[in-house]
Amino acid sequence: MTGPRYTPLVASLPATVPFVGPETQERARGEPFAARLGANENVFGPSPRVVGAMKRATPDIWQYGDPENHDLKQALAAHHEIPAENIVVGEGIDALLGYLVRMLVEPGDKVVTSFGAYPTFNFHVAGFGGELVTVPYMGDHEDPVALIEAAIECDAKLIYLANPDNPMGTCHPDNVIQAVINAVPDGTVLVLDEAYLEFAPDGTAPDLDVTNTSVIRFRTFSKAYGMAGARVGYGIAEAGLIDSFNKVRNHFGMNRLSQIGALEALADQRYLQQTLENVAAARDRIGIIAEENGLSVVPSATNFVAIDCGQGGVFAKKVLDALIARGIFVRMPFVSPQDRCIRLSAGTTEDLDKFAEALPKALAEAQG
Amino acid sequence: MTGPRYTPLVASLPATVPFVGPETQERARGEPFAARLGANENVFGPSPRVVGAMKRATPDIWQYGDPENHDLKQALAAHHEIPAENIVVGEGIDALLGYLVRMLVEPGDKVVTSFGAYPTFNFHVAGFGGELVTVPYMGDHEDPVALIEAAIECDAKLIYLANPDNPMGTCHPDNVIQAVINAVPDGTVLVLDEAYLEFAPDGTAPDLDVTNTSVIRFRTFSKAYGMAGARVGYGIAEAGLIDSFNKVRNHFGMNRLSQIGALEALADQRYLQQTLENVAAARDRIGIIAEENGLSVVPSATNFVAIDCGQGGVFAKKVLDALIARGIFVRMPFVSPQDRCIRLSAGTTEDLDKFAEALPKALAEAQG
Repeated sequence: MTGPRYTPLVASLPATVPFVGPETQERARGEPFAARLGANENVFGPSPRVVGAMKRATPDIWQYGDPENHDLKQALAAHHEIPAENIVVGEGIDALLGYLVRMLVEPGDKVVTSFGAYPTFNFHVAGFGGELVTVPYMGDHEDPVALIEAAIECDAKLIYLANPDNPMGTCHPDNVIQAVINAVPDGTVLVLDEAYLEFAPDGTAPDLDVTNTSVIRFRTFSKAYGMAGARVGYGIAEAGLIDSFNKVRNHFGMNRLSQIGALEALADQRYLQQTLENVAAARDRIGIIAEENGLSVVPSATNFVAIDCGQGGVFAKKVLDALIARGIFVRMPFVSPQDRCIRLSAGTTEDLDKFAEALPKALAEAQG
Repeated sequence: MTGPRYTPLVASLPATVPFVGPETQERARGEPFAARLGANENVFGPSPRVVGAMKRATPDIWQYGDPENHDLKQALAAHHEIPAENIVVGEGIDALLGYLVRMLVEPGDKVVTSFGAYPTFNFHVAGFGGELVTVPYMGDHEDPVALIEAAIECDAKLIYLANPDNPMGTCHPDNVIQAVINAVPDGTVLVLDEAYLEFAPDGTAPDLDVTNTSVIRFRTFSKAYGMAGARVGYGIAEAGLIDSFNKVRNHFGMNRLSQIGALEALADQRYLQQTLENVAAARDRIGIIAEENGLSVVPSATNFVAIDCGQGGVFAKKVLDALIARGIFVRMPFVSPQDRCIRLSAGTTEDLDKFAEALPKALAEAQG
């Protein structure tokens, strides 16, 4: 028997997972984590109004969601003061990235990103046969000039830039990002991933310009709105690019409760402000905990903080393993020199109490 | 400005929607439907245990779902008495169909289906450049022999067969389907869509054989379990084919609440039985209503019924429009001769009361 005849591209791909989930690690450990701080989730969770709206709608889960995401797009349009035709809603930014790559990238096409940036984007690029061209971080920031130069040199279909950045949490100010947008070569699209934007200082995002065909900006309800498990992301771009998603997207892919929850989340901006205050306080406390242990943090514009463990990746991995052994789920950047850090979410007071207790022991174990 | 440089394939695709959603029609009407019977949803809804479990988990929506779908796969494995390695869970059968087509079909590859069968499958095939080869229905049944013959003739990568069928609701017995499985040509994969299987009589599905590399079977929580809006489907196949989904799937695409709800739905088989009884009674009543209006129904093995309006597609469309004008949302098959029918879900007593009241008026209007 021949079996299934995969496309040559798919036959060449590894059966990979961009991230190992915390549940997988918990099953291997045989017990749950005491603090879940590794998956870039927002532990402060959704607004009580979101929880209420989703619960009320749960009995209606027998109905498909609206394939046009009409109400959510209208609300987002009002929120951002742009037309709804410039918004596409999808099953998290991950799914939208996959659709976008599929729309633009075929085998051999070049795509530019930073070495060590978001692995799921790379997964999609590989999945459609694109060739990834990477440029190094500049310090702990993505390097806008190098990204543009690489895109020009290799005639890239796409440039990926996250602002604020993941995994380091740094950000560039709006004028730097606007300069990147202005410098995008003709025929290239800049993927500006702003998943963590709400956590960043004012002046991080340039104004939206939905006439510009060179950029698509991604936002999400997974981070500041505390709804990662609901899978709701959206893209903002010129109307033609947005409409092209209708050629390939899973029209009935949106969860009905998630649509309802996201609508309510957007309406509760007061809760969002409270979350941002909680996150800022938690970031400060992580800085203090790090300092108490003789370590420093990378200044963060997100809801996670990279703690510089002061040595290379091997040492940081020992610290990470020792934290995990103590029930503290954290992650670390994949590549050098960022992998000198461990990265943890802005946790609750209780989470950070546990972290504060575990960190000195983990450091001692890693050193010893 | 050149703008985005789409792949030639994507540039050639229309920005299409496989189905217009009921919400879209409601917005056009300016009022909601009185009975929602057109979208192949299950109006009897999810088990109260499902609703309870999802509500309890709603505050945890800040956490991503388990990317391995471990617990749900284990429960499905136990339910079907097969290894978990033979199961892939995804965001509804629609998403899994998209992944499967992507894995096997590249531009120019042939795919066989019945003329008038599931449009979303065709959407995916077109989306990856496949060429659709169609065979006609045989009466109101899909034609297994013709499907196999066409697959041999065109050297198809995939054959799509729904059993029970959508949109007609008919089914073949297990021995006929087993004969199809046995006759699948080497190098071809049979997509056996069993979304409506739970509604069908015993003896509809052949035994699962997870060593067979020629078939993948799809099941869902959208239909009998009443969870369409949750987007949970799964595929059953040989382990190598299942593992290949990991090359392309959206690993963190599953909604956390949906995973929890599906697990609970599977555990409440008593509620499923009650649903099946409700659906059977509603099907019977639709038959009676049709008969009272001088019409006949196509015998259904699903939770919807095709009512033969006794004339061609133009007349059936008039009946459909007249029902919609009266707030009764139904759909109809897309192609002749199946489009002599209108298709409606097995509704609640209240739904069918409204339908019974509207149908004679709709018929009179269509005739007049």
